[in-house]
Amino acid sequence: MAVNEMMKTLVRTGPGTPTGNLLRRYWVPILLSSEIVEPDGAQVRVQILGEKLLAFRDSEGRAGLISEFCSHRGVSLYFGRNEDGGIRCSYHGLKFDIRGKCVDVPQAPQMCEKMSIKGYPCVERAGIVWAYMGPPDKQPELPGVEWANLPASHVFVSKRLQECNFMQAMEGGIDTSHVSFVHKFEVDDDPFHQGTKANEYIKKDGNVTFEVERHEGGLTLFGRRMGEPDSYYWRVTQFMFPWFTLIPPFGDHALGGHVWVPIDDEHCWAWSINFHPTKPLSGEEMQHLQDGKGVHCEYEPGADVPGGTFRPKQNKDNDYLIDRVAQKERRSFSGVLGFAAQDASLQESMGPIQDHDAEKLLPSDRAIVMARRMLYEAAENLEQGLEPPALAAASQAVRSAGVLLPRDQKPQEWAKEHLRDATTQPVYTL
Amino acid sequence: MAVNEMMKTLVRTGPGTPTGNLLRRYWVPILLSSEIVEPDGAQVRVQILGEKLLAFRDSEGRAGLISEFCSHRGVSLYFGRNEDGGIRCSYHGLKFDIRGKCVDVPQAPQMCEKMSIKGYPCVERAGIVWAYMGPPDKQPELPGVEWANLPASHVFVSKRLQECNFMQAMEGGIDTSHVSFVHKFEVDDDPFHQGTKANEYIKKDGNVTFEVERHEGGLTLFGRRMGEPDSYYWRVTQFMFPWFTLIPPFGDHALGGHVWVPIDDEHCWAWSINFHPTKPLSGEEMQHLQDGKGVHCEYEPGADVPGGTFRPKQNKDNDYLIDRVAQKERRSFSGVLGFAAQDASLQESMGPIQDHDAEKLLPSDRAIVMARRMLYEAAENLEQGLEPPALAAASQAVRSAGVLLPRDQKPQEWAKEHLRDATTQPVYTL
Amino acid sequence: MAVNEMMKTLVRTGPGTPTGNLLRRYWVPILLSSEIVEPDGAQVRVQILGEKLLAFRDSEGRAGLISEFCSHRGVSLYFGRNEDGGIRCSYHGLKFDIRGKCVDVPQAPQMCEKMSIKGYPCVERAGIVWAYMGPPDKQPELPGVEWANLPASHVFVSKRLQECNFMQAMEGGIDTSHVSFVHKFEVDDDPFHQGTKANEYIKKDGNVTFEVERHEGGLTLFGRRMGEPDSYYWRVTQFMFPWFTLIPPFGDHALGGHVWVPIDDEHCWAWSINFHPTKPLSGEEMQHLQDGKGVHCEYEPGADVPGGTFRPKQNKDNDYLIDRVAQKERRSFSGVLGFAAQDASLQESMGPIQDHDAEKLLPSDRAIVMARRMLYEAAENLEQGLEPPALAAASQAVRSAGVLLPRDQKPQEWAKEHLRDATTQPVYTL
Repeated sequence: MAVNEMMKTLVRTGPGTPTGNLLRRYWVPILLSSEIVEPDGAQVRVQILGEKLLAFRDSEGRAGLISEFCSHRGVSLYFGRNEDGGIRCSYHGLKFDIRGKCVDVPQAPQMCEKMSIKGYPCVERAGIVWAYMGPPDKQPELPGVEWANLPASHVFVSKRLQECNFMQAMEGGIDTSHVSFVHKFEVDDDPFHQGTKANEYIKKDGNVTFEVERHEGGLTLFGRRMGEPDSYYWRVTQFMFPWFTLIPPFGDHALGGHVWVPIDDEHCWAWSINFHPTKPLSGEEMQHLQDGKGVHCEYEPGADVPGGTFRPKQNKDNDYLIDRVAQKERRSFSGVLGFAAQDASLQESMGPIQDHDAEKLLPSDRAIVMARRMLYEAAENLEQGLEPPALAAASQAVRSAGVLLPRDQKPQEWAKEHLRDATTQPVYTL
Repeated sequence: MAVNEMMKTLVRTGPGTPTGNLLRRYWVPILLSSEIVEPDGAQVRVQILGEKLLAFRDSEGRAGLISEFCSHRGVSLYFGRNEDGGIRCSYHGLKFDIRGKCVDVPQAPQMCEKMSIKGYPCVERAGIVWAYMGPPDKQPELPGVEWANLPASHVFVSKRLQECNFMQAMEGGIDTSHVSFVHKFEVDDDPFHQGTKANEYIKKDGNVTFEVERHEGGLTLFGRRMGEPDSYYWRVTQFMFPWFTLIPPFGDHALGGHVWVPIDDEHCWAWSINFHPTKPLSGEEMQHLQDGKGVHCEYEPGADVPGGTFRPKQNKDNDYLIDRVAQKERRSFSGVLGFAAQDASLQESMGPIQDHDAEKLLPSDRAIVMARRMLYEAAENLEQGLEPPALAAASQAVRSAGVLLPRDQKPQEWAKEHLRDATTQPVYTL
Repeated sequence: MAVNEMMKTLVRTGPGTPTGNLLRRYWVPILLSSEIVEPDGAQVRVQILGEKLLAFRDSEGRAGLISEFCSHRGVSLYFGRNEDGGIRCSYHGLKFDIRGKCVDVPQAPQMCEKMSIKGYPCVERAGIVWAYMGPPDKQPELPGVEWANLPASHVFVSKRLQECNFMQAMEGGIDTSHVSFVHKFEVDDDPFHQGTKANEYIKKDGNVTFEVERHEGGLTLFGRRMGEPDSYYWRVTQFMFPWFTLIPPFGDHALGGHVWVPIDDEHCWAWSINFHPTKPLSGEEMQHLQDGKGVHCEYEPGADVPGGTFRPKQNKDNDYLIDRVAQKERRSFSGVLGFAAQDASLQESMGPIQDHDAEKLLPSDRAIVMARRMLYEAAENLEQGLEPPALAAASQAVRSAGVLLPRDQKPQEWAKEHLRDATTQPVYTL
């Protein structure tokens, strides 16, 4: 089957769809833990995989994720009371706990059992509330991605709204070949790139060539540039099933990562992560990230509040604040400034859901083709009763890297040894 | 037939639909008389039951309600001239009187007769322009609801936009059991409730039980609380065919009422009325209501002008100005403040048209079930050629009340005697 | 076939539709030359006939009009770089010239030939970029309409967004009978009408009668009023295939014209032109037009910039700033001020696409009926392989006029002699 045909399946992620069923077999990043700080505090609305949900923290401090709507008349529980171990609907007083179990029906206690609503188990890792939205008896191991298992001091996480299908956003994350165009000037300018060997190699050799390797947990991508006279400089990025990507570090700075989570089929959360496996992020680096620099962003006024839109300040309504003078003066390739806005501007311009019948893929799209195929096969297999790949936490615990290897060494061999079960390894960076 | 199945019929009210045909057999509140004050003044657009209409006052001061659009090219008569007994279209000069009759076609006088547009007879009662939008030979008696027939001094009327189907708004008006939840703190706080026996009984006994009685003109609802040692305190509310509700008074203050009129299938006018059957409203009470207190509301800036949106200041775009601190401190059950906004917040949160297949009704929804059934049967019967119920003005002339009755007295017997033909009765209130 | 039936075909102008195919056989006004002033300057998005396009000026100063989207992944070339003879996509660096030819695919040069996108030949006339969007082998002669071939000093051109189908806008341009209503007071008030014989005749005789003549290139319309005792005053307007109209001058002031170009089926560009065939527009007249007077308009803040919305300040969201006092005091017929806003208010009020099944045409709509029939027949004929009419530039080179003719002289005879091949004639005006 042609890969663009596969997209008709892959862009649909609502309840009961093949891709929706597949994605629901993994732990899903839902919202920032900081959006529901206080026990019995304000509940927030959040939509994930087409489901309208309510997140809250109960009296005992446990995160809950339940259907937004009361089972009785369909009223939003956003207007309910979060107190004494659950949310009470304001219309007729029905009450639900963090798993959606109905625990009180004032007018008809005998009906209580029949009135429960959807609720999903939650865990908190790296400042993110994750939920498992699949069949209860299939709950997998906790998220195995490295940054989700580090101390808070080692990680910075942000999310932003992206106004397109999660696949076309994620494909941008997998597609390392676009870096030489839209991000061309940023790569050089980033203060946490400057002064590193990595940056020097990148500037010296613009003619990068790519190889891709498929393994059980995803794809490993290898970008080759000239290194020293007897070596190549390899930048190794990762796609981990079903929606994670990892970016290599520069010098001793943080590694980067993303998760691409469907809100509905025309919007997704672009989660951006920086982390260091073995030490805290420096104060200077943390400040930089909090300011919305690097792969992070600034927001529309009032957008980055609990339950907020988290819509970037640079968005499609203002053409991402494109600066044609900066473009002309070669301070920006497209005129849009910043990694996140550059990616969003291009990917959102493809439409909420790209017309895949019109696209013409190139040989350089090989990694995207492989990712589509992996996901499509897994979704189809699941429909046939075959279990999805990479459910084990270990298969997500890979790492990105930048490394000099002798010219005759296969980077695939090296990566297999040094970037899987990565948590037991030193960080490879230049 | 299941009541949620019936809703597929009841939520559709456009021309030619069974429910639309039924509602058009009654006088319909269209707009405030004050929106078209001046003879030959500015015409205003108004949409009712899915029909785009134009209301105006002609040279003789008569209210007119006609199709918004010219029969010739379909231009809006909003841009026409209201003068000399009708509206003249600005495109080619065709002219229409208050009943939509074409009275001039400058370029082709011989075509005049063929160019008439829809127009509906209007009456004015209680500061409201009412129209009859049904078959001309079926025009019923004038509106019989008590407040529509009182002197201006005895009545205060307002309208607000509600952004959902009229049924789910009206069901909130019929459903007295929700008062103990979302309105819990307001009932106690309202200055025109305080100091009354009614308020004292309500505060003392939170465990209200409900009975419902169906009669030819609608439903009577009885809420029972402990009264004196040998009596019960009964609060009697009314649903009158096809869209009226009445609320009992507190002490010697005004009675309350509502009408729920479809704009289209996803919006309705919530009309709110306070009235006293036997005396003018006090200056203090009138001021309170004009300030948007009680069941009334404040509006978005510029919304309460002739032909305006009449959209409340608290609306779904601002989460009804929910105040989580007030909720936490138990000054508001849901955090939303005010009866009108509380109702709207819950009912609009069910969606523009509630998903009735997902609702799970409780025994306490009995009045709603009965109202749905009455309306559905009437709509189906009308399709079969059977006349609708409660066309006689007298059948709408019922009243709400609060009364202490001996514990062995059936309130139904008492209500039949004292709350029908209510205009000949004293007001029963405590 | 009934003319309202024909409208189902005539309102659809996207690629592959019969009417779309017809219109694409003529040169299409696309945007103002001033929107793409600078070689290698900022490209602008423009939608025409339902196609999303990008206009730009290349390094050599040539205007280009190409598909907005890259052939590879569908990214908008709005975010590309315009330099060195074409637009380079910011995602992966593909490059396209002014005709949409792909001239570079960095990752896969061998694929270049397959990656070209749509591109249309452009010419610039009267400060407008015109494109030919039809089959390459059918490109007609350059635009023959008189004002498109005058020196810049003789012409003033503006465009405004109209939020309805191009047919109902153009029909207003063809329909001279509406002038006596909505424009009644403006005709008299315009400073460039006052003091002319034309204005005097128009004021004296309100009872204008119309005749219409069909010829190969369009329609000529004749409006007759009393002139001198032995003459009639004829105002002769023109409809030229497929979307041009011309308005007669007053005194020695400029002639007027319009072009009505579909953006999509619910929006069109209303181009407005004033021109004098034999002399420059006076400074005073030019200033008047630049100020948005006459048939031109003022814009919403920020709307009249390169690639802007060109949405008028008076628009449907603000009821065209209707002034009911001005209407009451007979300073405006409808209360809307200015020719352009008056036309837009009425035509947009008919809906984005008028419900033609509901319209009831009058004998005075004869010119509209004839125009519809001409266009419909041409579209149907083209489907059968018959070439469209009026492809020769000469057939568009007609002129409008105001003239006194002896009462027994047929104006059709006079017009045939003096208003075709008009550029060789003096201007007839009073």
